[in-house]
Amino acid sequence: MSIETASIDLKFPTWYTEWERTLPDILPTDTDAMSTAISISSLNVKRGYGGPFGAVAVESGSRKIVATGMNVVLTAKSSLLHAEIACIIRAQKALNSHTLKSADIILYSSSEPCAMCMGAIPWSGISQLVCAARDEDVRAIGYDEGLKPDNWAGNFNKQYGIKVIRDFMRDEAVSVLQSYAHKIGIIY
Amino acid sequence: MSIETASIDLKFPTWYTEWERTLPDILPTDTDAMSTAISISSLNVKRGYGGPFGAVAVESGSRKIVATGMNVVLTAKSSLLHAEIACIIRAQKALNSHTLKSADIILYSSSEPCAMCMGAIPWSGISQLVCAARDEDVRAIGYDEGLKPDNWAGNFNKQYGIKVIRDFMRDEAVSVLQSYAHKIGIIY
Repeated sequence: MSIETASIDLKFPTWYTEWERTLPDILPTDTDAMSTAISISSLNVKRGYGGPFGAVAVESGSRKIVATGMNVVLTAKSSLLHAEIACIIRAQKALNSHTLKSADIILYSSSEPCAMCMGAIPWSGISQLVCAARDEDVRAIGYDEGLKPDNWAGNFNKQYGIKVIRDFMRDEAVSVLQSYAHKIGIIY
Repeated sequence: MSIETASIDLKFPTWYTEWERTLPDILPTDTDAMSTAISISSLNVKRGYGGPFGAVAVESGSRKIVATGMNVVLTAKSSLLHAEIACIIRAQKALNSHTLKSADIILYSSSEPCAMCMGAIPWSGISQLVCAARDEDVRAIGYDEGLKPDNWAGNFNKQYGIKVIRDFMRDEAVSVLQSYAHKIGIIY
């Protein structure tokens, strides 16, 4: 067989990297961090670039941004590149490790993770997950969240020591999801 | 904030790409394809390169290999790069699409998918999944398979039309898992 190139390009658009450059180094509060994640989801809708989802990884002690992530499934032509996965890839690259454990990272996500992202989080070494929109808010605009076990959030804590906070700025995130639905974006 | 490079390098070693070049274009039977997936897991153990897991994506009609994947978590420094995920990334790259749906792809995996890979499969557009070692075989050598819902395989079929075949060449795959355990490999 012939060999395909063994790399994956996240293909973040110029407008995104330019916007990212305007972010402060530090996001002092949960509200600052989640506002940033929701801004990403909102920018993605406005630009018509991809799914209405954004994520931000912050070091819990210093409150430094380690990475941000945006859903680039359609443009990067990879079903893997949900906002959370893109953020984890970049955070692990920034820390040059397959685990974020030692850095005590909080992942802020504009929506609860789908089954794939939920499965990826414990392996990534993330310490804490903060979500805005709920699973059912995402399903309400036509996205499938996949096969998730009941009480995954409780079990994150019990099995992996990962604290999960839900419904943080839920209304703000839901209003972005609804603006996306009104635009009748592509639900892949 | 400063921008990290927005790409992820799968970093397959030379011995792997050289071995891959010796594969035929076509794997006529399920046994041919699963033997190849198990060979990948076995090679990874012998070379001490990563987790004892391999995957192969085959076009169901032509039986052409679309991509192979090996667990490169430790060497590529990415918790995402399980064999199935690496295989999906490369298959989507080969088909230049975020979905493999139109190609009717069978994914052969040397072990049942963990929670992350299980979540990723429906989004990838894979049509059929064939697994060798069981979830409990993987757990038996110390790996965590994550939070998976009961009867995920049945629901793959019901919700996504993805047929799942289990225990195909299970003994062969288990013997590779056990050789890995005896070598006391790193369980990350």
